[in-house]
Amino acid sequence: MKIQIITSSLLFAAVAVMAQTPEPMKMKPEMTEIWDPEIAVITPGETPKDAPSDAIVLFDGVDLATEWTNSKGEKPEWIVADGCVTVKKGTGTIKTKRVFEDYQLHIEWRAPAEVIGESQGRGNSGIFMQGIYEVQVLDNYNNRTYRNGQAGSIYKQHPPLVNACKAPGVWQTYDIIYTAPRFNEDGITYFTPPTVTVLHNGVLVQNNVKMRGPTEYIGVPEYTVKKHGPGSIELQDHGNPVSFRNIWIREL
Amino acid sequence: MKIQIITSSLLFAAVAVMAQTPEPMKMKPEMTEIWDPEIAVITPGETPKDAPSDAIVLFDGVDLATEWTNSKGEKPEWIVADGCVTVKKGTGTIKTKRVFEDYQLHIEWRAPAEVIGESQGRGNSGIFMQGIYEVQVLDNYNNRTYRNGQAGSIYKQHPPLVNACKAPGVWQTYDIIYTAPRFNEDGITYFTPPTVTVLHNGVLVQNNVKMRGPTEYIGVPEYTVKKHGPGSIELQDHGNPVSFRNIWIREL
Amino acid sequence: MKIQIITSSLLFAAVAVMAQTPEPMKMKPEMTEIWDPEIAVITPGETPKDAPSDAIVLFDGVDLATEWTNSKGEKPEWIVADGCVTVKKGTGTIKTKRVFEDYQLHIEWRAPAEVIGESQGRGNSGIFMQGIYEVQVLDNYNNRTYRNGQAGSIYKQHPPLVNACKAPGVWQTYDIIYTAPRFNEDGITYFTPPTVTVLHNGVLVQNNVKMRGPTEYIGVPEYTVKKHGPGSIELQDHGNPVSFRNIWIREL
Amino acid sequence: MKIQIITSSLLFAAVAVMAQTPEPMKMKPEMTEIWDPEIAVITPGETPKDAPSDAIVLFDGVDLATEWTNSKGEKPEWIVADGCVTVKKGTGTIKTKRVFEDYQLHIEWRAPAEVIGESQGRGNSGIFMQGIYEVQVLDNYNNRTYRNGQAGSIYKQHPPLVNACKAPGVWQTYDIIYTAPRFNEDGITYFTPPTVTVLHNGVLVQNNVKMRGPTEYIGVPEYTVKKHGPGSIELQDHGNPVSFRNIWIREL
Repeated sequence: MKIQIITSSLLFAAVAVMAQTPEPMKMKPEMTEIWDPEIAVITPGETPKDAPSDAIVLFDGVDLATEWTNSKGEKPEWIVADGCVTVKKGTGTIKTKRVFEDYQLHIEWRAPAEVIGESQGRGNSGIFMQGIYEVQVLDNYNNRTYRNGQAGSIYKQHPPLVNACKAPGVWQTYDIIYTAPRFNEDGITYFTPPTVTVLHNGVLVQNNVKMRGPTEYIGVPEYTVKKHGPGSIELQDHGNPVSFRNIWIREL
Repeated sequence: MKIQIITSSLLFAAVAVMAQTPEPMKMKPEMTEIWDPEIAVITPGETPKDAPSDAIVLFDGVDLATEWTNSKGEKPEWIVADGCVTVKKGTGTIKTKRVFEDYQLHIEWRAPAEVIGESQGRGNSGIFMQGIYEVQVLDNYNNRTYRNGQAGSIYKQHPPLVNACKAPGVWQTYDIIYTAPRFNEDGITYFTPPTVTVLHNGVLVQNNVKMRGPTEYIGVPEYTVKKHGPGSIELQDHGNPVSFRNIWIREL
Repeated sequence: MKIQIITSSLLFAAVAVMAQTPEPMKMKPEMTEIWDPEIAVITPGETPKDAPSDAIVLFDGVDLATEWTNSKGEKPEWIVADGCVTVKKGTGTIKTKRVFEDYQLHIEWRAPAEVIGESQGRGNSGIFMQGIYEVQVLDNYNNRTYRNGQAGSIYKQHPPLVNACKAPGVWQTYDIIYTAPRFNEDGITYFTPPTVTVLHNGVLVQNNVKMRGPTEYIGVPEYTVKKHGPGSIELQDHGNPVSFRNIWIREL
Repeated sequence: MKIQIITSSLLFAAVAVMAQTPEPMKMKPEMTEIWDPEIAVITPGETPKDAPSDAIVLFDGVDLATEWTNSKGEKPEWIVADGCVTVKKGTGTIKTKRVFEDYQLHIEWRAPAEVIGESQGRGNSGIFMQGIYEVQVLDNYNNRTYRNGQAGSIYKQHPPLVNACKAPGVWQTYDIIYTAPRFNEDGITYFTPPTVTVLHNGVLVQNNVKMRGPTEYIGVPEYTVKKHGPGSIELQDHGNPVSFRNIWIREL
């Protein structure tokens, strides 16, 4: 009788084996270890604010004219002093001579210590990727404005996740990770849109958001998409004496 | 004759107007300005490394037991001294009591000043999101290993963009932006995969990469996806006395 | 001398071996073959237009009242005759009793054979996913209108890739693949937006496009996003006697 | 007293107005109506299976040599008869002379009516996009195989959502929407991966899935990505007399 039971068990096991599907064959760890090509070695900055060895320093606090021009391609009139550059009202935007596509950008800015104006009228400037996509610079410290026009917003497209502003007169940082758009053949739509991640004073305010089109003060950005190539970083003259310093960029 | 020309021109203009399609009607700036709800105001840290006001401090350099346990849920045996916590070999991972989904995590780590071992054997640890997705910690300073297992890699899934390691014995930073997966109803595929951005010492090493599945030392991660909820941050005991400090997190 | 050359070659080979990094270890085919769980078996329709075995037939040409109501939840007043249902002007939209999230929808429609009106006034109706996201139905055969309001458009958000309209009075097909949005905790932004693929008469007119928000006749869709759950399919009464038939849906 | 109440109300109303933030200014419908450029007009096929006016007919059931070669660039040896082309075992793949990037492809296939073999051995062929990314063709009617190798799978990368196979000897359809990859400058990673949507007999089996790399019978596709340009459609000789007909393509 015991033999019979064993036989049944064996039979059952055999049927189970027949019905059962294969388990994937086991791998070895080395099968998923890729050595080449070697990852490029760089030297990071002393602190995260400091330019790493593979960065282009766009402004070191002293020399503006080597990397920047005004909108006419001439020497920029903005004021360089005390290790920073300050908007000179009425002289227009300044922009990099070099043009860029995908990059990591570090930039520090300071709204004027003397508080004048309100909403969009206080400490207003902007950082334009490829000359047309704006990360808003604004003194939003105790200063309410429309949510999609705040400091750290992708102007009129994406409000920031939080308002992480420091007080007027205090230096603030933006770390911007930017991927340029690629275009469809029609020349008026994106194959992939521009994407942006922004850390404001170390706090995430934009997480890989997709732009809908160029920044528009008036109207709908989707309708104004036009194929373009690499472009300058531009800093806006919005009439307020906003200052900038320690600007570096790493192309991705 | 002159009159005739003018008439033709008018006629042409009239035809042009008839054939022409409408231009979109012009908007006003206020039509794209959204005020409500107000964006939450927070206070950023003194420097980007410092915890902002909306962060949970997971380790302040002194108190480990409030926020962390060992893998059995007991008080962690790792060594707290000199403002940091160091892996105690053989005691296993430590993990947060709290569980998280989407977040921004700041963490600082230091490989042992005394260089012992090579490749994966030198200064090895890891930071696991939701307990199963690893950002590799490794002393890759003058230490070659497989590219998808380096410091700053999403282990065996995404090599880092560059090797931004500091020397052994020197403190390093990771700023990690993590979005947890959402699952399909089958429970074995992602509706959206986990995504990760990593800055290593302020240098972008992962840019919104998508995970293929849980971290696997052996085999293919796609085959081991299983639906899960929020999870702990875990720090790995890989046998090397790696140290950690200044750990804070902001839920997104 | 020949010996010397050989020795050099050996030396070179030896150095090469030393400098060389490991090749990933070879796998076997079975290591990437996954058997379980078994894929569900269904029976496709006789032709691609015919409902497969896992579809819910929403309208078979005869019975409308089982699956549909008018906007007040009552028996729909639209006219069922000759194997199709036709808009009864002034009675409002009809909608499914069932609510859906992600699905594949097959629907056939016919603009009135008698051509009346122009631009948006000719053969106008619409198919609303979750009651608020519209794929436009319009007689665009020799009828120009704004590009983002054409047949096959995601109304006022995405123009169709081509105009694939058939003549008025001829039956046309839409095959729509729809993924419902998932929401962020703020309740006013998408974690993932709705996405839509549309084949119009077998021709791709929308390829996995992302919606910006609910369909808006006036204004900007981004500003009107509000968290919602599963929703009905709705067919629009735009005043024109557009007909529908052979409506089936497969939940994904 | 009544006057006093009214005064309070007015006062309250005034305060409310002061505290209140602006509502976005109302738009008009015409502000979001875009007329130009006009959408291209095409003529769809009689049924969704029939080639529309903007398609390239790659095989009409009679002439194979105009659009196809064997793998050596010579006249293909496969057998053309009865309005279809059938794999001639041992002659290798056939491929289009033209090369493509993004497209919509319609193709019909038939597994041999005589059932021979099992699992991957029955009615096996394949359609390769850009020559390296395979949509599996297999007789999976009452024939179990590994889920990521079934008919409608992206071979060894994405199992189909359902098994929508028809019986051996019966014609089946694939409608494939394919977007070619774009590459990063390193030449070994995708900027955007290939994406594929597949309808099998009108049933969605792949919904905009992302490929991890070229199709690999052995090993991990991520490790074999290499930058490439436009490529042929290839049909596989896997030793089974699978037939094809009515092949047309629309470039996107």
